[in-house]
Amino acid sequence: MGTRTVFIISDRTGITAEMLSHSLLTQFPGIEFDYRILPFVDDEAKIAAAKQQIDDDAKENGVKPIVFTTLVNDNLRYLLFEANGEFFDFFDRYIAPLERELKQTSSHRVGESHSMSDAKKYTSRIAAVNFSVHCDDGLHPGDYERADVILTGVSRSGKTPTSLYLALHFGIFAANYPITDDELEASTLPKILQPFRDKVYGLTIDPVRLQQIRSERRANSAYSELSQCRYEVGQVEQIYLAEGLPNLNATVMSIEEISATIIQDLALNREIF
Amino acid sequence: MGTRTVFIISDRTGITAEMLSHSLLTQFPGIEFDYRILPFVDDEAKIAAAKQQIDDDAKENGVKPIVFTTLVNDNLRYLLFEANGEFFDFFDRYIAPLERELKQTSSHRVGESHSMSDAKKYTSRIAAVNFSVHCDDGLHPGDYERADVILTGVSRSGKTPTSLYLALHFGIFAANYPITDDELEASTLPKILQPFRDKVYGLTIDPVRLQQIRSERRANSAYSELSQCRYEVGQVEQIYLAEGLPNLNATVMSIEEISATIIQDLALNREIF
Repeated sequence: MGTRTVFIISDRTGITAEMLSHSLLTQFPGIEFDYRILPFVDDEAKIAAAKQQIDDDAKENGVKPIVFTTLVNDNLRYLLFEANGEFFDFFDRYIAPLERELKQTSSHRVGESHSMSDAKKYTSRIAAVNFSVHCDDGLHPGDYERADVILTGVSRSGKTPTSLYLALHFGIFAANYPITDDELEASTLPKILQPFRDKVYGLTIDPVRLQQIRSERRANSAYSELSQCRYEVGQVEQIYLAEGLPNLNATVMSIEEISATIIQDLALNREIF
Repeated sequence: MGTRTVFIISDRTGITAEMLSHSLLTQFPGIEFDYRILPFVDDEAKIAAAKQQIDDDAKENGVKPIVFTTLVNDNLRYLLFEANGEFFDFFDRYIAPLERELKQTSSHRVGESHSMSDAKKYTSRIAAVNFSVHCDDGLHPGDYERADVILTGVSRSGKTPTSLYLALHFGIFAANYPITDDELEASTLPKILQPFRDKVYGLTIDPVRLQQIRSERRANSAYSELSQCRYEVGQVEQIYLAEGLPNLNATVMSIEEISATIIQDLALNREIF
């Protein structure tokens, strides 16, 4: 089917529109999409420039590009709709029915989401990120009292990206603690984690996948040998089982999927930013 | 207007649906929304449980809850629609027009976005996160060759959360380097950054806001004195000006807004996950 151009045009970051269009277009695996993301399109001059890009693309490719928009301002939106694109506006389709249902007209203010409009909530988000960096990879266990969750698992099982995602996206104070060789031998929860076992969550991973990941980092080392990976994963899973810890095999899961599962399993409080 | 319950029901993480509903509902500032997020609702039993929650809520509050859904499976979606809610499905409204426009039926496969379906892209995302943690706060400048962008600025001007967001969300290799007191005195770009000036991006911040942030961290210290904040911000802005560095005053901007601006200003390549 070839390639189709997709424009994402937003008066703010475009991040929401981009995620939603990506969700939708991954439902059409036969087509390759060439994304052009235009954020901060918030005045008539920028709309005119975006229109030109759409028209040029339609002319060049002989087919209208797909255009996803989140434009709060009706005037700007209708100006853009004059371009030669196939338009899908995420506001247009939902705001009117929501206004009817909520019996209130919408504010039409740009940039209310992803903004600093709620300063206190925002400060707590930054605090969560700083905490997760501060308590990455077993650092500063003396601060675990403040953690909402402490991820554990063997080296390279996904703890760091997941902790940071939980902090950035949900404002969760997420520490992570790698279980070391000595602690694996013991077959019990490391001493340092014992007082916090209610907030410990274990990650595990297929040993073959772990070996691949470790090899990219440090090839031909004891660390990346399959036998070592098998041993560590076996031991860590035994600890989870013996201690009855909630845990997750994250081998084929994305950071988003791992994070959403942990939040659900531990019923963590989280924010929406 | 009081509080209105909002359900977000997804067959996967619900993160996309959550972001879009948050974007939409922040347009109704008079109403407080009580979010109930139900991810991984992917079989009939879970749909039945979700239906029950919706019906119970409608009964309790005397008004239908708002229900945002992203359910790929038509059968599950229509089952859920029998509940006593006001439904907004993000797939339903867009998939049919997209199928017409793209002349292809959609795959109806669950979890294509936020998934590991593209392993190579996914590995590069994790590598970006590891790089950003590895090169946080001036660590490992010997690895700046691999950076896509090096954020700089005074302490607490937003470098760390922004670097991590760029890595996690866009797969960008983002380092960050805090300009120290000695380097501020010199009024030129720190030596360590000079070979990489094409990828250096400066953050700045209002000194009063900086003082607030620093006070939360270390109150009543020289570090958090307004005069010190004013001095540092003045010096750093002078460096940006003298060196002609791209820079941004991030005082009232969210992490998303800062990140999207940097990507635009430096025309960085980025992925969509």
